[in-house]
Amino acid sequence: MKKLINSAESVVTDTLAGMAEAHPDLRIDLAQKIVYRRSLPTPGKVGLVSGGGSGHEPLHAGFVGHGMLDAACPGEVFTSPVPDQIIEASHRVDGGAGVLHIVKNYTGDVMNFQMAAELCAEEGVEVGTVLVNDDVAVKDSLYTAGRRGTGATLFVEKITGALAETGAALGEVARIAGQVNARSRSFGIALSSCTVPAAGKPTFELGDGEVEVGIGIHGEPGRARVPAASARELARVAMDAVNDDLPLSGDVLVMVNGMGGTPLMELYVVFAEVAAYLREKGATATRSLVGNYVTSLDMQGFSVTVCLLNDELTRLWDAPVQTPALRWGR
Amino acid sequence: MKKLINSAESVVTDTLAGMAEAHPDLRIDLAQKIVYRRSLPTPGKVGLVSGGGSGHEPLHAGFVGHGMLDAACPGEVFTSPVPDQIIEASHRVDGGAGVLHIVKNYTGDVMNFQMAAELCAEEGVEVGTVLVNDDVAVKDSLYTAGRRGTGATLFVEKITGALAETGAALGEVARIAGQVNARSRSFGIALSSCTVPAAGKPTFELGDGEVEVGIGIHGEPGRARVPAASARELARVAMDAVNDDLPLSGDVLVMVNGMGGTPLMELYVVFAEVAAYLREKGATATRSLVGNYVTSLDMQGFSVTVCLLNDELTRLWDAPVQTPALRWGR
Repeated sequence: MKKLINSAESVVTDTLAGMAEAHPDLRIDLAQKIVYRRSLPTPGKVGLVSGGGSGHEPLHAGFVGHGMLDAACPGEVFTSPVPDQIIEASHRVDGGAGVLHIVKNYTGDVMNFQMAAELCAEEGVEVGTVLVNDDVAVKDSLYTAGRRGTGATLFVEKITGALAETGAALGEVARIAGQVNARSRSFGIALSSCTVPAAGKPTFELGDGEVEVGIGIHGEPGRARVPAASARELARVAMDAVNDDLPLSGDVLVMVNGMGGTPLMELYVVFAEVAAYLREKGATATRSLVGNYVTSLDMQGFSVTVCLLNDELTRLWDAPVQTPALRWGR
Repeated sequence: MKKLINSAESVVTDTLAGMAEAHPDLRIDLAQKIVYRRSLPTPGKVGLVSGGGSGHEPLHAGFVGHGMLDAACPGEVFTSPVPDQIIEASHRVDGGAGVLHIVKNYTGDVMNFQMAAELCAEEGVEVGTVLVNDDVAVKDSLYTAGRRGTGATLFVEKITGALAETGAALGEVARIAGQVNARSRSFGIALSSCTVPAAGKPTFELGDGEVEVGIGIHGEPGRARVPAASARELARVAMDAVNDDLPLSGDVLVMVNGMGGTPLMELYVVFAEVAAYLREKGATATRSLVGNYVTSLDMQGFSVTVCLLNDELTRLWDAPVQTPALRWGR
């Protein structure tokens, strides 16, 4: 294993230290491992807290800032954050309008966020929760009861973030979060495994001519191993899986996401195929992202996430956002 | 070789097709392979044209837009653009104030941009040229007489782009371009080779425990192969090389750049070390970028680029920019 790290033990703290140096708009509690906006709380605004295992950067810490999250709680690599982190973050971002927890559907995350929400409630912090479960690849998985949460997490964070800035109430922010999740689907394909620093070797082995279809963001198994194929064919496999679950039509928001080790060039090649597929189905990619947003360490491959837009969601997507990894419009 | 492409022959066109779908603010001539801003020329504004081999995405096409380039001319992978592309782009972006060519110092690029500039001049388009040669690793290289141009190209494009928006004359825009180059240095380290699609195999072989110090962005050799080491040690090797050439002090702009296959997490770990190194030298990273900006296909590794700031350069760096890969402040 060759990685740009100092040690497997310190990699999360070292990452956060680098983020603190690079992004003066963030306030980072290195001891507790919590990433905040610089000035908090915002009185009358619903606080948005997300979190999950590290190794998916820029998710979630890279999405903290105006128009998106108020705080992110990174766990160790591929490991849930602990309830104490989530409780501390929730207290600190609560401006009196309550807090929404945005939780990817993995057993550990669900359990720890639930425990934190209960303790927050006892201490008088109102908490709502949205579970993100957009990945159509598998019904249950190694880490999940039900579908996994992947790329739609970014959509939920962006769109609820925009709504929360308007002063909307917790119930309304939670409603839109649920709506974005319900209208979103994802599917991923890996060309290679990832290597967890503490493990020191690839999580799984793929042959020279094989790809893993329906891969999870921790390297957990997907639907099948199939022969490597062209970008066109692989994009079609992913989009067929999405379209079988949620027929595509109208205006859609699409993300072609790199898994961490995939060059941008290849992601654009995939995006061209995804856009062509959508046209074939009578849908249009009116909003899009192409890049590394919800990654799996050094894995090579891509995932595609679509969300069926309506006027409200489009307007909220377009609203200003100022975070390390997503910024526009101000 | 596993890559998300349709064929080695079509990879550049397919990439540009994806960019055209994803970025409606760009106008992309797929036949000539030129990426433009949507509306051109801007009367009275110096036109900025850059270009070079593909495989370094988002450089250069991802930097076309308000506050940065007017047009980019991508060549085939790791191959210079042809004079016809550059001439066509220069004509189209000329709003009567002339055109600046921003050229990375590689033999093919220098030759083709020079030929294009001469033909433009004959046709009445005034052209200035800045050669970027920031990489301190080697004096001459496989592709270069003199130093290679790498990360500072982004700095030159951003800062001259901001100045050109103010209506500054060609001589002034060329002067600032030269100043940015003169005040900038880079150094890169590879953990792995890249694989050129048409070659189908890695450009070079690195042992399990080896890194290539002073790597070029086409996988051309650097200074030495040394045993793999911690992020702290590798950051120090890179920064020492930079500091030996240009003593670091005062406010600096720093980019920790991924080579294409490196996770963001690792780049932040390196950035923390770079920031600490700067403090040790009495310098401060007052502006920074961390991410994949000047890549080498799927190579794993990083480069660091620093620019000694002054008030003028800081102001121009902070000016609004709206491109696919760099956007802030509007």
